[in-house]
Amino acid sequence: MKSNEEVVKVALLGSGTVGGGVIKVLKKNADVISQRAGVKIELDKVLIIQSDVGKPILEGLNTTFSFDEIINDPEIKIVIELIGGIKPAKDFMIKAMEHGKNVVTANKDVIAQFGKELFETAEKYNVEFAFEASVGGGIPIIRPLKESLIANHLTEVLGIVNGTTNYMLTKMSENGADYDTVLKEAQSMGFAEANPAADVEGLDAARKAAILASLAFNSRVTLDDVYREGITKITPADIDYAKNLGYVVKLLAVCKDSEKGIEARVHPVFLKKDHPLASVSGVLNAIFVRGDAINQAMFFGPGAGSLPTASAVVSDIMNIARKVSNDVNLHIGCTCFNQKQICSIEDSETSYYIRLLVDDKPGVLGAIATAFGNCGVSLKSVVQTNADEIDHAEIVVITHKVKYKNILDAEDSLKKLSVVDEIRNMIRVESD
Amino acid sequence: MKSNEEVVKVALLGSGTVGGGVIKVLKKNADVISQRAGVKIELDKVLIIQSDVGKPILEGLNTTFSFDEIINDPEIKIVIELIGGIKPAKDFMIKAMEHGKNVVTANKDVIAQFGKELFETAEKYNVEFAFEASVGGGIPIIRPLKESLIANHLTEVLGIVNGTTNYMLTKMSENGADYDTVLKEAQSMGFAEANPAADVEGLDAARKAAILASLAFNSRVTLDDVYREGITKITPADIDYAKNLGYVVKLLAVCKDSEKGIEARVHPVFLKKDHPLASVSGVLNAIFVRGDAINQAMFFGPGAGSLPTASAVVSDIMNIARKVSNDVNLHIGCTCFNQKQICSIEDSETSYYIRLLVDDKPGVLGAIATAFGNCGVSLKSVVQTNADEIDHAEIVVITHKVKYKNILDAEDSLKKLSVVDEIRNMIRVESD
Repeated sequence: MKSNEEVVKVALLGSGTVGGGVIKVLKKNADVISQRAGVKIELDKVLIIQSDVGKPILEGLNTTFSFDEIINDPEIKIVIELIGGIKPAKDFMIKAMEHGKNVVTANKDVIAQFGKELFETAEKYNVEFAFEASVGGGIPIIRPLKESLIANHLTEVLGIVNGTTNYMLTKMSENGADYDTVLKEAQSMGFAEANPAADVEGLDAARKAAILASLAFNSRVTLDDVYREGITKITPADIDYAKNLGYVVKLLAVCKDSEKGIEARVHPVFLKKDHPLASVSGVLNAIFVRGDAINQAMFFGPGAGSLPTASAVVSDIMNIARKVSNDVNLHIGCTCFNQKQICSIEDSETSYYIRLLVDDKPGVLGAIATAFGNCGVSLKSVVQTNADEIDHAEIVVITHKVKYKNILDAEDSLKKLSVVDEIRNMIRVESD
Repeated sequence: MKSNEEVVKVALLGSGTVGGGVIKVLKKNADVISQRAGVKIELDKVLIIQSDVGKPILEGLNTTFSFDEIINDPEIKIVIELIGGIKPAKDFMIKAMEHGKNVVTANKDVIAQFGKELFETAEKYNVEFAFEASVGGGIPIIRPLKESLIANHLTEVLGIVNGTTNYMLTKMSENGADYDTVLKEAQSMGFAEANPAADVEGLDAARKAAILASLAFNSRVTLDDVYREGITKITPADIDYAKNLGYVVKLLAVCKDSEKGIEARVHPVFLKKDHPLASVSGVLNAIFVRGDAINQAMFFGPGAGSLPTASAVVSDIMNIARKVSNDVNLHIGCTCFNQKQICSIEDSETSYYIRLLVDDKPGVLGAIATAFGNCGVSLKSVVQTNADEIDHAEIVVITHKVKYKNILDAEDSLKKLSVVDEIRNMIRVESD
């Protein structure tokens, strides 16, 4: 271990929410950072974009508009990419590696789509590529998957990895509010963006699912491999039924490895109330992992935010700086040793909650049960309740585990039944 | 990264519960272990003690009664100490390091008392000393504290780190059973030992508290520094009051760092129902961490057991094997850079729950409130209920935050009051 007087110089690309947090943490916690890393970390240059100009956080820092200035500076050993999005972030990371720079990023978009290219570039140029902040914000999950749970055959990763939707579902559950109301509230609190599509339609969570599945199962899963449903169709009625049946409604990233292949999907689920993830509320995130030795583990904390995400970014910087200052060049690199097939969503098996509006007359239940049975869907429970509509009833069915293609068949059959007026919702049940 | 054909030889000391688990995991998961470590890990020798002889798990393994045979074998790079207890485990670890062996252990007893000596020896002989399994069984917590949360000034670590007592308190809470009944049940289930003292009196948790505090605050805390109360005096009445007041009763390892010094204590607490640790039930463990950047994080999973603990041990072996096979000699080593003072238990501040049996007559409440006030204890809430005893009442007080020495003064004063017949319990409230 070298003396604390040694310095490793780093450059930061982007000084937005997370970038600003990194600047603050590097400054405020410089003492413990140099003690623990065994070396001083010096923020040598900050690449700013037009919208960053004049930000108070940049005061006293050496800023530049020139990315070339950064990659051509031989003193800079680590480039921290916090611009986000695909362009120009991806090109910047690749170029930084080509110039021998280690790269730290929080960029889930690039990794979920172009992870393979990034890892191959890192390997080619023998540099480190670290991305703890890309999933779960401040929660340590990437390192635990790459270094702590590695004695296990992992079989399942379930994640609440989007704070916006978890906040919204929590509020809907707490006060019975509907989707539109909680979305507006989330927007006014700054928990949802003006255009909330990436969150509420599950895109953000799907990127994280791709990263988690790739790491857990050692096989590349990209964004395109992830099946995706958002939370826009969740109603107070569904949340009520969930409560009465012993469940909570969560938007989960579900990653499974079985003989059918890898499943990676993001969708709302009915989750048993006593599941460790069920009590994760508000904007908090958690990732639940199942493995053959450990059985289960869960990692919980803030999944976003300036300082929490900076906590993850700076830990990556510190671990690389320690190696740089000791001339150690041992990287774990890409861990996708295998090429497992992706299980199609049609072949994926779960239980389902299905809510129907039906005519309130004798024989309806029989007709519905027969339709399900003919499609190979076996029912675990059926509850009939009054509907607001005259001469109608609601029927809520929980199925046994069944392939999605059977459910799609059943949906077709139900639609053809004259007694079925509407299929009001279908939500997967995570029953394990 | 070297080819998977390379081999790193390891030796195992002890083939009990955890040792047996390590043998199983190394065998069953050999494929992913060599893929992820980048090298084959070969269990070359197992040191057995008399009670291990003839165990089926040892079949086909190269066993020996001679520790010298292991340390004098230059091929063996990692020694895995899973004998437990101080003697001979500590001497074996020291001698192994003196012979240039890296050491992996689950031994909280030795680390909590002799951590300094072990780290100094590791540094002197330039070997790795890894102990992920010493706290929280399979839960990744040591590595997250040493490598993931390092950008933070950590201020608090709260742990449910003893499965036996958490199981007992969970059962008491679920079905109103008393301490003796749940202890017997825990013993019959194999969750408590015939002599349960180390668990129920908080000794096991105190060892883990010492390790957690040392890592979190970068300053050596030993077992002797940890204040300790067990769960033997917890009654169904206390658990009932907790429920009614919005708390659960948990045995917590509490580690805090403030300007008063480091607090490390193990005792029952009233914990708010919505605290992330409150829903951790049964034999499961969890460690909750607070830091200035991340705010909060929690790590949850099985805190004991053969395979879960082996999951942690084998991950340590794999990380060292990767370095050994790449001739990399960079260890984080001891992280106790500071010498912070320990805050005396008398100066530690919490709220308290205090339950008193008093005479049921006018003026009692006033006398008690005055006695508290005179000792500098300010009350947050007071509830009076009927007692089973004729002409008596129970008074339950929740105090504001106050130093323990004031509570001890108040206890003395209360005992002197003729209207106070019994101080039935005093339990700290973790109110943050």
